[in-house]
Amino acid sequence: MIHESVVMGTDVSLGANTVIEENVVIGNNVKIGHNVTIKANTTIGNGVQINDLTILGKETSSNKKMARKPLKNTTPLIIEDDVKIGCSSVIYRNVLLKKGVFVGDLSSIRENVTVGEDSIIGRNVMVENNTTIGKRVTIQTGCYITADMEIEDEVFFGPCCSTSNDKYMGMGNFKHQGPIIRKGAKIGNNATLLPAVVIGENSIVGAGAVITKDVPANKTVVGNPGRLLN
Amino acid sequence: MIHESVVMGTDVSLGANTVIEENVVIGNNVKIGHNVTIKANTTIGNGVQINDLTILGKETSSNKKMARKPLKNTTPLIIEDDVKIGCSSVIYRNVLLKKGVFVGDLSSIRENVTVGEDSIIGRNVMVENNTTIGKRVTIQTGCYITADMEIEDEVFFGPCCSTSNDKYMGMGNFKHQGPIIRKGAKIGNNATLLPAVVIGENSIVGAGAVITKDVPANKTVVGNPGRLLN
Amino acid sequence: MIHESVVMGTDVSLGANTVIEENVVIGNNVKIGHNVTIKANTTIGNGVQINDLTILGKETSSNKKMARKPLKNTTPLIIEDDVKIGCSSVIYRNVLLKKGVFVGDLSSIRENVTVGEDSIIGRNVMVENNTTIGKRVTIQTGCYITADMEIEDEVFFGPCCSTSNDKYMGMGNFKHQGPIIRKGAKIGNNATLLPAVVIGENSIVGAGAVITKDVPANKTVVGNPGRLLN
Repeated sequence: MIHESVVMGTDVSLGANTVIEENVVIGNNVKIGHNVTIKANTTIGNGVQINDLTILGKETSSNKKMARKPLKNTTPLIIEDDVKIGCSSVIYRNVLLKKGVFVGDLSSIRENVTVGEDSIIGRNVMVENNTTIGKRVTIQTGCYITADMEIEDEVFFGPCCSTSNDKYMGMGNFKHQGPIIRKGAKIGNNATLLPAVVIGENSIVGAGAVITKDVPANKTVVGNPGRLLN
Repeated sequence: MIHESVVMGTDVSLGANTVIEENVVIGNNVKIGHNVTIKANTTIGNGVQINDLTILGKETSSNKKMARKPLKNTTPLIIEDDVKIGCSSVIYRNVLLKKGVFVGDLSSIRENVTVGEDSIIGRNVMVENNTTIGKRVTIQTGCYITADMEIEDEVFFGPCCSTSNDKYMGMGNFKHQGPIIRKGAKIGNNATLLPAVVIGENSIVGAGAVITKDVPANKTVVGNPGRLLN
Repeated sequence: MIHESVVMGTDVSLGANTVIEENVVIGNNVKIGHNVTIKANTTIGNGVQINDLTILGKETSSNKKMARKPLKNTTPLIIEDDVKIGCSSVIYRNVLLKKGVFVGDLSSIRENVTVGEDSIIGRNVMVENNTTIGKRVTIQTGCYITADMEIEDEVFFGPCCSTSNDKYMGMGNFKHQGPIIRKGAKIGNNATLLPAVVIGENSIVGAGAVITKDVPANKTVVGNPGRLLN
C-alpha cells in the first residue's frame, strides 16, 4: 500500500506487503524489505537500506501515569544517505540519522534523538528520547541508552550497558539528566551508569562496574561501586 | 484477513495486512495498526490502541528439554478499555491487561499474567508466566520479570533490572519462586534479584545491586552482595 | 508471495502475507505463521514450527566503521526436524539449528553459528556470529551471547547474562575471543563474563557476578570481581 503522494527516486526496490504513508520522500538506490512500514512525512536519502518488518516514523504515545507527555507537531524522521537499518526495528518521528549510520535488528530509537555520521546502534539497543549521539560512536548489542543523555564522538559502549536519568525513581517530576560520556570513552559490557554521571575523555569503565560518581579524563574505573584503578 | 466471526464495534480503524482470527471481539474507538495479528478468541475493550506488527493472543509452546509444559485450554487474552500497546510486541493467551495499561514496543508478556490498572510495561520488557503485577506499577525499558513473581501496587523498576526464580538453575523440577516486591518499593537500574527474595514496602534497591536475601520495609540496599545503607 | 521454485512437503500450513523466496525447501508437517519471511535457499526439515513475523535466512550487513566485514557466499540457513521458532525473531544465513531446538520470540542468531540438539534459545536472546552452542543447552531470556564463543553441552545460562569478546573495546583489529563454557556449567542471572574467560566443567557462576579470570572445574564463584566460594 503506497500512498499516491509518495515521491520516489530511481532504482528503489520494494519488498512485499510494504506500507508507505502520505508525503514520504525516498531517494535513489534505496532498498526496502518486506512488510516495512514507513509513516507519513518521513524523508529517506540515497543509498539507504531498510530491512524487513521495520517501522519508520512512529508517533510517540503515553498513558495517564506518565509524567512527561509526548511532544506534538514534531519534525518528521530524517534518514540521510547510506544509512542501513536492520529487521524489526522501530524508529520514531523527530529522529535524525546522519550519513552512514548503521542500526541493527530489533532495536528502537525514540523521538528527539540525533545519531552522528557512521555511528553504530547495535541489535536490540533501545535509545530513549532527548539524547544526542556523536560521530563514529559504537553502541553494541543490547545496550540501554536513557533519555537526556549526551554521547560525544568516538565513544564505545560494550554490550548490555545500562544507564539511567532519574535519581528519584519516579517519585516526582524533577529534572531528569542522563550520563554524559566524553569523547573516546569506553564502557565495558553490562556496566551500570547512574543519573548525571560524567565519564571523562578517553576514560575506561570496566565490565560490570557500577558508576555512582564522575570519572575524570584518562582514568580506568572498575567494581561496585566503581573505584579508580590508576 | 478478517475472519467472518469477528465482532467489531463502531469507529474501529484497521491498518493494512491485518490478520484477525475467529471469535475475536473488538470494542468501540479502537485503532489497530498495520500488519497486526490478533489470534482467536481475544477480547479488546473500548478506546484501545494496538500499534503495527504486534501479535495478540499467542499460544504457548515448548520443546522436550523444558520441565514445565504449556497449559492447555487456557482462557483467551483480555484487553480492557484504554490500553495502549506498542509496535512489534507479543502478548500471549491467558493474559489480562486492565484498564489504562501501557505496553511499549518490542516487549512480550507470557501466559497466566495479570497487569493492574494504569501500569506501564516499558519497551523491550519480557514478562514470564504466572506473575501478577499490581496497579500503577512502572517497569522501565529492558527489564526482565521472571515467572512466579508478585509485584504489588506502585512498585517502580528502573531500566534493565533482572530477576530469577530457580535457585537450582535447571538441575531439577523443584518449586520455582520469583521475587516478591512489596508496595511502593523502587528497584534501581540493572539490579539483580535472586529467587524468592522479598523487597519490603517502600524499600529502595540501588542501581547495579545484587540482592541475595530479603530486604525489610523502608530500607535502602546497595552493592554486590547487597548491604543495608540505613 | 511464494516463489515458483519453492519445494514444499505435505501438510504444510501457511499464514497470511507470507513471503517465501527462491529455492527454499520445506519438509512435511510444517507450520508457518502470518507475515513470515523466508529468504532464498533456506532449508526447513519435517515437523518444524515458525511463528508469526519471523525472518529466516537474513544476509549479514555492515557499515564502514565496522572492522569485520560480512562473509560472502556463505551457506544458507538449515533448520533440522522438529525445531520451533517463536514470533518476531531474526535468524541469519549460515546458521544450523539441529533437531529439536527451541528459539523464543524476539530473538536473533547471527551467521556462522551452530545450535545443538534440543537446546533452548530463550526470548529476546541475541547470539553473535562464529559461536558454537552444544546439545541440551539452556540460554534463558534476555541473554547476550557474544561472537567467537564456545558453549559445551548441557550448559545453563540464567536470564540476562552478558558476555564479551574484545578486551581492547574497539581500539584495534586484534583477535577476538569470547568466553568458553565447559560442559554442565551454570551461569546465574545478569552475570558478566569478560573476554576469553574459561568456566570449568560443572562450575557455578553466581547471579550478578563479574568474571574476570578463568574458573576451575566444580567451583562456585560470586561477587564483583568474582571470587571462589569453595
